[in-house]
Amino acid sequence: MKKEPFPVSNIRRFLEPGPIVLVGSHWKGRDNLMTLGWHVVLEFSPSLVGLMISSGNHTFEMVRQSKECTINVPTLPLIDKVVGIGNCSGADTDKFEKFELTRADSREVEAPSVGECHANLECRLVEDKLVPSLNFFVFEVVAARAAPRPKYPKTFHYYGEGKFMTAGPVVDRSRLFKPSMLL
Amino acid sequence: MKKEPFPVSNIRRFLEPGPIVLVGSHWKGRDNLMTLGWHVVLEFSPSLVGLMISSGNHTFEMVRQSKECTINVPTLPLIDKVVGIGNCSGADTDKFEKFELTRADSREVEAPSVGECHANLECRLVEDKLVPSLNFFVFEVVAARAAPRPKYPKTFHYYGEGKFMTAGPVVDRSRLFKPSMLL
Repeated sequence: MKKEPFPVSNIRRFLEPGPIVLVGSHWKGRDNLMTLGWHVVLEFSPSLVGLMISSGNHTFEMVRQSKECTINVPTLPLIDKVVGIGNCSGADTDKFEKFELTRADSREVEAPSVGECHANLECRLVEDKLVPSLNFFVFEVVAARAAPRPKYPKTFHYYGEGKFMTAGPVVDRSRLFKPSMLL
Repeated sequence: MKKEPFPVSNIRRFLEPGPIVLVGSHWKGRDNLMTLGWHVVLEFSPSLVGLMISSGNHTFEMVRQSKECTINVPTLPLIDKVVGIGNCSGADTDKFEKFELTRADSREVEAPSVGECHANLECRLVEDKLVPSLNFFVFEVVAARAAPRPKYPKTFHYYGEGKFMTAGPVVDRSRLFKPSMLL
């Protein structure tokens, strides 16, 4: 999949709708991937996002130590792999190998990007005050790449109980916005 | 709309897919509503959610002072009202009146619920360490009510630039989950 650099201040397009994402991490010569739905956009510029990474996950210590990760946005054809990634552990599994995903180099961080994902966001840890109590990490997105088309990728979103919502039609209400609100 | 009590430990069904929500607040005898897409589930039990409420919003001080809010999940027929609510200020507008929405009593908090929304979550502030730096509030959901049908409501999700994604078909991958992961 051919990707292009994407402005980090605009990555809300990929995260605010709430899709399931893959978090990539790298620590002590090993890579890992984690399936995650508990994320939030926090600021445009600097580009900040929050992730709740439960301490029971292998990714938790890798990210806490390396202070880096990638956030990768998968589309519907990847759903079975994404579910599989969420149902095994990096403690005993090389997930790139097991799920036959492309370990793509990132530009600004050591954590790997997922070649097959629509967008790859490279992140550095900037705030960890809520990690001890809530496992909540705040990252700055320092680089991003995305496929130029489609503008609105076919993401999937988790309801729980093994059920997912898939992205439906796009509706345009820009005529109802004040110009200053059309960020 | 007839609603029933809903288990607070299960409200990820409504929030994790990432819909636009309406935040209700009450302070000094006045109610307000705010349109918000920057939210995150943080824990099942206690039921915790995080909201980024920008300090430029009238809701910010109302929630900071009252330490309460409601999170209301609208469905597609409400989209024009929800956009309108996001494009005016509670400083000079009674939004329930202007947008002809039902100011429903909440059970556990003073903040009003929105009668026309599919689900109403009543929240108390439990963590404000990241409010000064990031406007990030952590709430416990102390009560919830939802329409019993449909199980998966037709929510809408924001891309930016006035464009929304609407909830598409539900896909079931529960057969690929380990039983312990089917929460």
